Amino acid sequence: MSDTPSQKLSHFDALGQAWMVDVGHKQPSQRKAVAQGSIRLSQAAFAALQNPQEHSPKGDVLGVARIAAIQGAKQTSNLIPLCHPLPLTHLSVDFALDAEQLRVQITVTAETFGKTGVEMEALTGASVGLLTIYDMLKAVDKGMVIEAIALLRKEGGKSGTWLRPSGAED
Amino acid sequence: MSDTPSQKLSHFDALGQAWMVDVGHKQPSQRKAVAQGSIRLSQAAFAALQNPQEHSPKGDVLGVARIAAIQGAKQTSNLIPLCHPLPLTHLSVDFALDAEQLRVQITVTAETFGKTGVEMEALTGASVGLLTIYDMLKAVDKGMVIEAIALLRKEGGKSGTWLRPSGAED
Amino acid sequence: MSDTPSQKLSHFDALGQAWMVDVGHKQPSQRKAVAQGSIRLSQAAFAALQNPQEHSPKGDVLGVARIAAIQGAKQTSNLIPLCHPLPLTHLSVDFALDAEQLRVQITVTAETFGKTGVEMEALTGASVGLLTIYDMLKAVDKGMVIEAIALLRKEGGKSGTWLRPSGAED
Amino acid sequence: MSDTPSQKLSHFDALGQAWMVDVGHKQPSQRKAVAQGSIRLSQAAFAALQNPQEHSPKGDVLGVARIAAIQGAKQTSNLIPLCHPLPLTHLSVDFALDAEQLRVQITVTAETFGKTGVEMEALTGASVGLLTIYDMLKAVDKGMVIEAIALLRKEGGKSGTWLRPSGAED
Amino acid sequence: MSDTPSQKLSHFDALGQAWMVDVGHKQPSQRKAVAQGSIRLSQAAFAALQNPQEHSPKGDVLGVARIAAIQGAKQTSNLIPLCHPLPLTHLSVDFALDAEQLRVQITVTAETFGKTGVEMEALTGASVGLLTIYDMLKAVDKGMVIEAIALLRKEGGKSGTWLRPSGAED
Amino acid sequence: MSDTPSQKLSHFDALGQAWMVDVGHKQPSQRKAVAQGSIRLSQAAFAALQNPQEHSPKGDVLGVARIAAIQGAKQTSNLIPLCHPLPLTHLSVDFALDAEQLRVQITVTAETFGKTGVEMEALTGASVGLLTIYDMLKAVDKGMVIEAIALLRKEGGKSGTWLRPSGAED
Repeated sequence: MSDTPSQKLSHFDALGQAWMVDVGHKQPSQRKAVAQGSIRLSQAAFAALQNPQEHSPKGDVLGVARIAAIQGAKQTSNLIPLCHPLPLTHLSVDFALDAEQLRVQITVTAETFGKTGVEMEALTGASVGLLTIYDMLKAVDKGMVIEAIALLRKEGGKSGTWLRPSGAED
Repeated sequence: MSDTPSQKLSHFDALGQAWMVDVGHKQPSQRKAVAQGSIRLSQAAFAALQNPQEHSPKGDVLGVARIAAIQGAKQTSNLIPLCHPLPLTHLSVDFALDAEQLRVQITVTAETFGKTGVEMEALTGASVGLLTIYDMLKAVDKGMVIEAIALLRKEGGKSGTWLRPSGAED
Repeated sequence: MSDTPSQKLSHFDALGQAWMVDVGHKQPSQRKAVAQGSIRLSQAAFAALQNPQEHSPKGDVLGVARIAAIQGAKQTSNLIPLCHPLPLTHLSVDFALDAEQLRVQITVTAETFGKTGVEMEALTGASVGLLTIYDMLKAVDKGMVIEAIALLRKEGGKSGTWLRPSGAED
Repeated sequence: MSDTPSQKLSHFDALGQAWMVDVGHKQPSQRKAVAQGSIRLSQAAFAALQNPQEHSPKGDVLGVARIAAIQGAKQTSNLIPLCHPLPLTHLSVDFALDAEQLRVQITVTAETFGKTGVEMEALTGASVGLLTIYDMLKAVDKGMVIEAIALLRKEGGKSGTWLRPSGAED
Repeated sequence: MSDTPSQKLSHFDALGQAWMVDVGHKQPSQRKAVAQGSIRLSQAAFAALQNPQEHSPKGDVLGVARIAAIQGAKQTSNLIPLCHPLPLTHLSVDFALDAEQLRVQITVTAETFGKTGVEMEALTGASVGLLTIYDMLKAVDKGMVIEAIALLRKEGGKSGTWLRPSGAED
Repeated sequence: MSDTPSQKLSHFDALGQAWMVDVGHKQPSQRKAVAQGSIRLSQAAFAALQNPQEHSPKGDVLGVARIAAIQGAKQTSNLIPLCHPLPLTHLSVDFALDAEQLRVQITVTAETFGKTGVEMEALTGASVGLLTIYDMLKAVDKGMVIEAIALLRKEGGKSGTWLRPSGAED
């Protein structure tokens, strides 16, 4: 990666004090961010998720987690201290079940038209969705691990498109 | 792990519909939960964190993340749909920097005296703390990955103490 | 009404999963919505409201309910999972007392300039206003009934003006 | 009903000013409240709900509304100005579809152990659940009407059990 | 005052890091706190408040501010990072108009039965009430000054009763 | 000041009822507001703040208060009933310590591009920041007084720039 230590941390002013960066001069643009993350389950927890008829109506754990992810993404600027509030124009949440790896992967896509990016909204949505899966299955398995919450890509803004280097996650 | 698929998912009633479990009959007890998680940084982001005098006052990224973790933990029942609201009596947040692995690890301890556990509070605090580190360093590195958010141990309640099996995380 | 079952539910994507609809491509326009609802009181509760000098300063129950309706409308996107957050530009709340029918009717008008309508904001404001009247009079009467919360009209957006068919409410 | 105008409105002090009633001297007790409400749909909206395979996965509208009702009930003291905050120990939400009357009825049960009742929590949950159904079906039908939000019964507290007089709703 | 620099700041642990103090071991007790504050108005703003019939219904500015103070006090643990959440059992708000000094004084009383005091709830309620008065009169006068927000007394807890030394405010 | 009693209170409609003013017709413009306030400490509390190495890491009380001020400013429209929600584009918080007067002064600058001003956001941020200082030092001194919260200047909007008359504060 081309990042160098000389880059400034934009969340600090010249005196090194935290602030909410001034974005007033930025041009609004169409913004999009996609974030992913996953949760690793025990056999028992994965079975509860996969054969839900024995435990729960099909898809309900993920159905609740999807709503939690959406509601959580809308709370981003209340949760992340230096995040700007912004009106999301789109949020979608997808899940993929990996029976071999015993994982559930969440993908959250966030969009807005505005002066700041929506990376934190996508990442926060993914985190809250995974926490909700943990909460709903923790009676079966307390050992689940939330893993690999990362930005997949972002579009829009002055810095344009950023794509996660392939293979970066492993 | 001894979990078996026959365990019931407590968040669903007999008809398989999501609800907020009835804990009215439970005896209140002293509850404690410790959760951990980490974020993997690029060299550049870790340098910004480690030599903050070039970028920021010492500890400020972590100082902001600590407050965010505490505030986030207090929002748990608003974020996780089927979580019971409960008044936390203690919350602490610790960070450990691993310069070799380029990681920051967060440990959140939550306590209450009540009828439900505080696992979700500890896990939510850890997640929000790590998201805040991402937010504050993302101008330097968008490729950071949040990893290994897991419960370390819990105490109290009818099921008593649960300890993460050693080595489970790797 | 001309609705047909073939209309798509916009809150679900092609796979039938709930999401927050993408409104990024929509043109912002001036939006307005008016919602109504009412609460039916016992004689005793209505008397308490109408002759407040014996119980309370004039208008105070309704004064508190008005503020609750306004504050509640601002919480709409936090309460209704798939609602887009939007910055309201106007909110007003009116009450009408019907001594014969022993009802209080609330009318909430919401406006914004944006990409989504404000129907839910008006309806949520009306609901919270009526719930607040219930709360403040429930020491006198627990049997009050909240009734007929409905959209009266909406303006703006691609679908333009919608007016409630007259007589639809009865 | 035996209510008389001489009953005091407990939300006002001796000077008639709104306050949050002092419940410090009350004995905590097991509290329960059950509230109901319904929404009247057009044929088209009811069909969308009943034959969801053409529009949405089975039960999803109600699944989202159930979560919204639960989350909404937890927000009660933030929405209703003079409501005391209290930690709910149980919340459940049931729906009944009436194909003849083209109605969906919601029933919300709330419980706590505390010094104040949970009537407002049950009523608020019911209201938010119904508003969410409206939101999710409004692309099909804007004319839906929310009706008959009322307390069914309450238990606990000094005043003991209250049951809605039968037939009171019609 | 007998405070000495050797007193520890309870909001920091042994390493000097902010945390939410552990109050788990404390005995719950009846807690009460009374806070005051005032806002200094111009002649024009005071007239608008005092002769409201020309501008507004009697008492409405203060009526709205009272509700805001109550709602704000309930938000204390969300606003003040290291404050423990606690369920208030009583909140009252009083105003006094001083026509000579052109001031409005707010007094907020908060009570709970718990392990931590309610000083911050009373002070936060007073602050939000005064800010609301400013908001509602700022069209008449932007120069209003909020003054002298202070704790008047607190009761309960291990340290017992604390009374503001008389004359301390001037 | 040139304010006259004939100015209308914009928060009330023609019938004198509180509402959220209609700003739909206003032209959006660049808005800025600067607010100040201070807290007067005892010698002991000031020493704890000034020589933090004996009590706390340098700057931490102010670091926590800064984050609280930023987060609090983002909550303005939830706290102040008739405030319009608006997306802040900039927020900064500065502290000045006055060892002679034993005061800490906070200055909060808020900016947005929109139809309403950000005076309340700046004032709310200042209030919450000062309340947080009180909270963090109250173990040392309960007698601290929050003082002189006032608008310093505002820019933008139809009424243009407003500057606090010099000397007005003393």
